[in-house]
Amino acid sequence: MKAYCDLTREELLKLQEQLNVEYEEAKKKGLKLDMSRGKPSPAQLDMGMKLLDALNSESDMLCENGMDSRNYGQLDGIPEAKKLMADMMGTKPENVVVCGNASLNIMYDSVARSMIHGVNGSTPWCKLNKVKFLCPAPGYDRHFAITEHFGIEMITIPMSPTGPDMDLVEKYVNTDPEVKGIWCVPKYSNPQGYTYSADTVKRFAALKPAAEDFRIYWDNAYVIHDLYDDRSDDLLDILDECEKAGNPDMVIEFASTSKISFAGAGIAAFASSKTNLDFIKKSMTIQTIGYDKVNQLLHVRYFKDINGIKEHMKKHASLMRPKFEAVLEILERELGEAEIGKWTDPNGGYFISFQAIPGCAKEIVAKCKEAGLVLTKAGAVYPYGKDPEDSNIRIAPSYPSLDEMKEAAELFALCVKLVSVGKFLEK
Amino acid sequence: MKAYCDLTREELLKLQEQLNVEYEEAKKKGLKLDMSRGKPSPAQLDMGMKLLDALNSESDMLCENGMDSRNYGQLDGIPEAKKLMADMMGTKPENVVVCGNASLNIMYDSVARSMIHGVNGSTPWCKLNKVKFLCPAPGYDRHFAITEHFGIEMITIPMSPTGPDMDLVEKYVNTDPEVKGIWCVPKYSNPQGYTYSADTVKRFAALKPAAEDFRIYWDNAYVIHDLYDDRSDDLLDILDECEKAGNPDMVIEFASTSKISFAGAGIAAFASSKTNLDFIKKSMTIQTIGYDKVNQLLHVRYFKDINGIKEHMKKHASLMRPKFEAVLEILERELGEAEIGKWTDPNGGYFISFQAIPGCAKEIVAKCKEAGLVLTKAGAVYPYGKDPEDSNIRIAPSYPSLDEMKEAAELFALCVKLVSVGKFLEK
Repeated sequence: MKAYCDLTREELLKLQEQLNVEYEEAKKKGLKLDMSRGKPSPAQLDMGMKLLDALNSESDMLCENGMDSRNYGQLDGIPEAKKLMADMMGTKPENVVVCGNASLNIMYDSVARSMIHGVNGSTPWCKLNKVKFLCPAPGYDRHFAITEHFGIEMITIPMSPTGPDMDLVEKYVNTDPEVKGIWCVPKYSNPQGYTYSADTVKRFAALKPAAEDFRIYWDNAYVIHDLYDDRSDDLLDILDECEKAGNPDMVIEFASTSKISFAGAGIAAFASSKTNLDFIKKSMTIQTIGYDKVNQLLHVRYFKDINGIKEHMKKHASLMRPKFEAVLEILERELGEAEIGKWTDPNGGYFISFQAIPGCAKEIVAKCKEAGLVLTKAGAVYPYGKDPEDSNIRIAPSYPSLDEMKEAAELFALCVKLVSVGKFLEK
Repeated sequence: MKAYCDLTREELLKLQEQLNVEYEEAKKKGLKLDMSRGKPSPAQLDMGMKLLDALNSESDMLCENGMDSRNYGQLDGIPEAKKLMADMMGTKPENVVVCGNASLNIMYDSVARSMIHGVNGSTPWCKLNKVKFLCPAPGYDRHFAITEHFGIEMITIPMSPTGPDMDLVEKYVNTDPEVKGIWCVPKYSNPQGYTYSADTVKRFAALKPAAEDFRIYWDNAYVIHDLYDDRSDDLLDILDECEKAGNPDMVIEFASTSKISFAGAGIAAFASSKTNLDFIKKSMTIQTIGYDKVNQLLHVRYFKDINGIKEHMKKHASLMRPKFEAVLEILERELGEAEIGKWTDPNGGYFISFQAIPGCAKEIVAKCKEAGLVLTKAGAVYPYGKDPEDSNIRIAPSYPSLDEMKEAAELFALCVKLVSVGKFLEK
């Protein structure tokens, strides 16, 4: 097969005809598959079912500090859950607060609190004319949704395999006092699966923000989500680096077991400096009497410790890996020589990021949908849902079965070819 | 025994001497009891332990609509949990959203959302010069804490056995556009155990608020918390009454199973009109991917339906009732004829409200603490923690055992006598 750019008009037309036939055939299969979100599969969730046996009516419900997990209290989480989440994030238990089932909710609360109460006594953001956040993109659509919801202006920062463009980050953060935050998914980033290099993390820690209330929102969602036994990424501990660089209060880190135990019923946590935690807890103590400690205890009793989580994640990887490999194999086979797309091959996380020829993403997603495959909305991984190149498509292999995934990848590759041929014919 | 007001100075001095001896004896007992909050007792929590057997590793985790409770999604709660909470609140499932473990958090979120996004499109409260809430008092200290935290001015509304002073409520709500809300605990109110009369509820529903974004925050925390088999209070359904009165959007109702299943690990819900829910869900969909549906399913599988909850609450009542009766018996025996206090005798809820001679509450609470009994801070049940009469003390019989409760009540009565004698001697 030749690269599409080297095909004559006649060859392109012939190819288009043939692809159209294939596409009509594919539509007839009546595929019905929703790959729009990074959801764990039922098989993956089944692997955690023993979690539900970790507590029963005969269980001792006391935490290690003697507190009754069933009753009110212990605002910042039970000690053993703090330890577990700290070990996962690579930080100290005293930096950690364990909350409810969703780290997204903690992030939302962090921004909401800053809007109304400021950051450690700074002017509440709702009293300011303008607040800006830096948004490395492609990135996580739900981060962007939070900032947009609060009327915060989003500035796109290009991503690279070593992390966000740090020259740009430094320029904005160190000179513009309206820049109050940056969203980061530092490990196995959503959607590219990139991990911030040591140099990137150190440059983050060494920022000299123009705004005293600037914070790094460090969403370590895939901190322990390796796909392979023999290759994995390392990420420096941002809290530690910030402390060493004299910026101990500059970061809030988030993590959860949503993609470890149960997606809707895990435990979520955040980590930060003592100064930050003291301020945040003042709001928390008004907000709630405490989060669900029974679920926290359940998780600790089941996983025991960080090694228990690591073992569990190996099982997940054994399910996820074949699906990632199948997608990569099909993309390479179908698109490799055609030169009509690039894609990432991450060591972990939940996504493969596909970069189509500019101007093709929306149409590819629409074609897939027409044939029964729902993908994440094109553009969703950019602020305001606008991919300037209309090029990025997020592939989420977690939910489908291996067979479904293969079928979906074949269909996806077919749609990429079909739309790309059309694009070349327009020229 | 004579009323203290009829005692001569000599009799008072003699009594004081004798009470001081008793108090010194009491201190020697080394009591250590915290009755500061309305916490369920361990015995009460033990009654719900079978809840933990309702799901195990062999369970079918699908909800009745086919959704996997373990995965992401279903923002407004699983259908069967909506039904259960609707039946508890006496409303329709379509009015209900089931959230996480704490109704307090839903209330906080409601106010926070109004601060930043307004109510159904009204001006965000943070953009207004002043926002006021009406606070029936004595009331729930954590309601007042939320309003104070957001800088909302609190206006005290006196409580009566039929509910808040509705003449005052109508005057404020119907004329002052800065009045944006009122906190209500309409059934077995905290701390007096009063239930709003049908007339009160109808007058609430018929309010003509000067502010379009005025809402009634209807915290139905003790909706199903009867203490006796043969006497209980009835409360009209506020949503229904508001709809009938042409004010369908005027109320948000809250409830939870915190004092039914586990205090820290129940399920909480709110109910409101479709218009309100549509607006609120727009924020919720940004705030979280969904609440803990496994815990929602657990609760439905255990309680089955509203009758299951009612049966369970009868067991709770059998534990709570003797403690309430003991307190009432001791108060009557020790203080009845002395005329140095009044107290409520509620049909349900978690508290007995004690009204001391004006100017005595703080000192009584301090005396109790000195002898090892921690009570709710005097004044806590008033806005800004200021009881204008320094008279109200909240007694929370739920947590102590029956024997502890008797000991505590004896000590409390002793402290009331001691402080009251001192007060009469000052005159």
